[in-house]
Amino acid sequence: MNAPADFSHLLARAREPFPASAKSWIQGSRPDLRVPVRDIRLTNGEVVSVYDTSGPYTDPAASIDVRRGLPGVRSAWIEERGDTEGYAGRAPQAIDDGQRSEDAARLRELRAQAAALQRRPRRARAGANVTQMHYARRGIVTPEMEYVALRENGRREWMEQYLADAAREQRLAGNPLGASIPRVITPEFVRDEVARGRAIIPANINHPEVEPMAIGRNFRVKINANIGNSAVTSSIEEEVEKLVWAIRWGADNVMDLSTGKNIHTTRDWIIRNSPVPIGTVPIYQALEKVGGIAEDLTWEIFRDTLIEQAEQGVDYFTIHAGVRLAFIHLTAARRTGIVSRGGSIMAKWCMAHHRESFIYEHFEEICEIMKSYDVSFSLGDGLRPGSLSDANDEAQFAELRTLGELTQVAWKHDVQTMIEGPGHVPMHLIQANMAEQLRTCHEAPFYTLGPLTIDISPGYDHIASAIGAAMIGWMGTAMLCYVTPKEHLGLPDREDVKQGIIAYRIAAHAADVAKGHPAARARDDALSQARFEFRWQDQFNLGLDPDTAREFHDETLPKDSAKVA
Amino acid sequence: MNAPADFSHLLARAREPFPASAKSWIQGSRPDLRVPVRDIRLTNGEVVSVYDTSGPYTDPAASIDVRRGLPGVRSAWIEERGDTEGYAGRAPQAIDDGQRSEDAARLRELRAQAAALQRRPRRARAGANVTQMHYARRGIVTPEMEYVALRENGRREWMEQYLADAAREQRLAGNPLGASIPRVITPEFVRDEVARGRAIIPANINHPEVEPMAIGRNFRVKINANIGNSAVTSSIEEEVEKLVWAIRWGADNVMDLSTGKNIHTTRDWIIRNSPVPIGTVPIYQALEKVGGIAEDLTWEIFRDTLIEQAEQGVDYFTIHAGVRLAFIHLTAARRTGIVSRGGSIMAKWCMAHHRESFIYEHFEEICEIMKSYDVSFSLGDGLRPGSLSDANDEAQFAELRTLGELTQVAWKHDVQTMIEGPGHVPMHLIQANMAEQLRTCHEAPFYTLGPLTIDISPGYDHIASAIGAAMIGWMGTAMLCYVTPKEHLGLPDREDVKQGIIAYRIAAHAADVAKGHPAARARDDALSQARFEFRWQDQFNLGLDPDTAREFHDETLPKDSAKVA
Repeated sequence: MNAPADFSHLLARAREPFPASAKSWIQGSRPDLRVPVRDIRLTNGEVVSVYDTSGPYTDPAASIDVRRGLPGVRSAWIEERGDTEGYAGRAPQAIDDGQRSEDAARLRELRAQAAALQRRPRRARAGANVTQMHYARRGIVTPEMEYVALRENGRREWMEQYLADAAREQRLAGNPLGASIPRVITPEFVRDEVARGRAIIPANINHPEVEPMAIGRNFRVKINANIGNSAVTSSIEEEVEKLVWAIRWGADNVMDLSTGKNIHTTRDWIIRNSPVPIGTVPIYQALEKVGGIAEDLTWEIFRDTLIEQAEQGVDYFTIHAGVRLAFIHLTAARRTGIVSRGGSIMAKWCMAHHRESFIYEHFEEICEIMKSYDVSFSLGDGLRPGSLSDANDEAQFAELRTLGELTQVAWKHDVQTMIEGPGHVPMHLIQANMAEQLRTCHEAPFYTLGPLTIDISPGYDHIASAIGAAMIGWMGTAMLCYVTPKEHLGLPDREDVKQGIIAYRIAAHAADVAKGHPAARARDDALSQARFEFRWQDQFNLGLDPDTAREFHDETLPKDSAKVA
Repeated sequence: MNAPADFSHLLARAREPFPASAKSWIQGSRPDLRVPVRDIRLTNGEVVSVYDTSGPYTDPAASIDVRRGLPGVRSAWIEERGDTEGYAGRAPQAIDDGQRSEDAARLRELRAQAAALQRRPRRARAGANVTQMHYARRGIVTPEMEYVALRENGRREWMEQYLADAAREQRLAGNPLGASIPRVITPEFVRDEVARGRAIIPANINHPEVEPMAIGRNFRVKINANIGNSAVTSSIEEEVEKLVWAIRWGADNVMDLSTGKNIHTTRDWIIRNSPVPIGTVPIYQALEKVGGIAEDLTWEIFRDTLIEQAEQGVDYFTIHAGVRLAFIHLTAARRTGIVSRGGSIMAKWCMAHHRESFIYEHFEEICEIMKSYDVSFSLGDGLRPGSLSDANDEAQFAELRTLGELTQVAWKHDVQTMIEGPGHVPMHLIQANMAEQLRTCHEAPFYTLGPLTIDISPGYDHIASAIGAAMIGWMGTAMLCYVTPKEHLGLPDREDVKQGIIAYRIAAHAADVAKGHPAARARDDALSQARFEFRWQDQFNLGLDPDTAREFHDETLPKDSAKVA
């Protein structure tokens, strides 16, 4: 176990600005609406501005105390809407940190560290619905929507010179495969996409620290990185450092999949310090509360966990509502059965009680909770294939159809919804998988894990899955959950997290270029121009990982071997 | 610089059999026709047999002396055909090792090391044509063709249990996208594919050590790794170790791109010790002979270099015959001009002399040389795009059309031919690129470098290009030239070579699964089954890199978290 001092040091390193880079802001329509970008200064005087997920951490001017949390960039917007109220909140319970928590003294210490991170929760006033989808459907363009529009557009001025050749642009024009991406993304376009359910803006009213972003096929493809507490949680710094490291390299979202000790307290640390939306799988915590015995789960414990997490500010919940009793037998003939952890928990419960899933049965009650806090659904694919062998089978598609039905239930409540997808799919079945999701789930955003395109690459599954991720991203998937080199083998360390994120930034960018996101390809052109002109520093700094490119550069490489103007 | 002793040690390591693996052979129709496979023994008693590119090196029973070379598995076959003759061969010249070679004493020492690697060359008897294509077109099934058929099929017996479920097989059936892959690959099928030019078997009569393999869209997708001598060549062991390392991890072909000192002598070492086909770019050596001045190249020097290399046993030549004078101006408006080294050499020559390319003008004479030794053409894409920005442009396609015309000239001489391709292509333009090649070049095998799908990932271009490689492999490309993490940055070291090869084995296998190669998916199923049954050792040993999978495995990982039967 590393001492807290080590993590403070790592955190300081993860906060360093990128080389030749400075944070700047695109000013919105109100003084407190400022969208961060990263400006990369080239050696020829140009400035290339890129999408920035790293939050205030890469701003040397930002004073950050991880024991107090980030400022609430959205606080005023939420307050002004006048449809929420502060309240005492659910009373904390010892069980919230799990049955396997630290001894009492240690836990008190950990909670004391987090004392200044406690917030009085808000919820919707009686009868109110505070989701972005609800506002969108009433025609309201929220500051969150405007923020997203400015962020997706980025600064276009510098791109003009790179995209000025009409013949070239026609030759390279993206193939959107059914997506409808406008040349300029307006706040009104964002509103419309959210209203029709084609995009979500995960933004719990109890997570005002979040810098709004959208997940939808007509926007930039996003990536998610998973983190989770380790067996022995040492400090706030350790947990926050993982988060800061992930967003430094380009994670648009982070899921906290902690299943260990001090699960509630860890989440306080993560959310209060996170500028990106945080997702969770609440059934994991619920299971800890019943000592790991799936059969002992109840609707009441699950419901209470949802409220607990909604009050903390979780932005989206993975809910495995489609693992219905009737579908479980469909997995019997599979090569690899049920491999989703949440899916297997619910399958065990259904089989033990021989009853329909309590999550499915209480789905409308869950919607009521979601709309009181604006927690988005990430409808989990508990029956996703765990091997090529099980790809696109009836178990998977039966669940997907149920998720499509539940999407319409959620939308009846104006609850933002995305759909999780596989997993393991050979290349030639990816298109069918995507088409089925679009059709069945009415274009609700798809959020896939990979998919892996082969099963024989343990140790390199980030690559095997980046292939599938790039393709499904082009075909319409809105967010890609990363896979690290340790997939199937062990828990990722810091370097694995970085490797997974870079592989997925590659996949997402490849998808953006292919589908024709208007702000995507100019950066490739700028880097290629730098490469052609032997501006090595610019080439490194325009890349996804300047440190590695610089380290790999061989100064002895011939400089003129293969270039003819 | 490492001492020779170090390379002997590394070579010994690269010769170790894979874990739980033993080489075995599929017996052909004659005693000396035995096709190697690698048998992996699982803990449950099953034996899974996989394609094996590593040659005799991973056979502990094989006694190998790299200073004497490998046995000539094809020697008898070549001899028996009675259409070749030994002859004195071209007289060695001091210039063959380049103008920048070592001092005389050192060079004498290096040549002395290679003394036992000298062979008396063979060539076709007057009027004879000794290409595999020529035999195929006359209806002759050569031992090489039978070898390829047995190798492509592999052992099918163990696969049966994994592919026995008819419903599953129907669900997962490949989508060949125009390929015509039979369930069982027969020697007659191989003959027919070679006869119609849809596949090549690179197999110079002066490289009898080669274990025959085929490159064609109806066969397993192949990968090529590039090696080349370093600034200071130390010994035979160093050069051979690079080769053995590359084929250990799955390189089907190796290109020797040496441009440094002792270029001729290095090639002796590589070819005599290589069980895989060796390709070169002869213009590189020709350029060394004129001191690096492109303008000083002549047809005579180039022709002499072709004969020199053909006598040594090079199996295919990259020939940039499509860089015609008239096409050069098409690159003027490009973002990244001409990035192919061979392409830029020829463009410089054409512009300096304002004359048509001497390679293009003498193409039929080159065919005469090729058919005397059965050297295959790899028609180089000297105008390939060096960035997304230049993908699928008129310069590229004008050259491609010329390569299509030259393919027909080569076929008139029964010379085996494949076509090189890009480079840098965004995902949405890959299909068009492939379709254009198939149409223009009459289904001659396509051999692509990547393509990279984005330009912003220096340090990770093996991943950015594995995405494109997998897709273009599925769509019909027959061989994928690897890209390492050092692409655009420096020369790959040993670990980079391995990383590049693994990434490309992933891409090639993903393509084989997608297009439905009948011997592809069973290995995935076997590994998935092992994974589901927590047979960890089997999971590692069935993977592309057992060492890394084993090293990454975290013994503390929960064993029952996410599995329900």
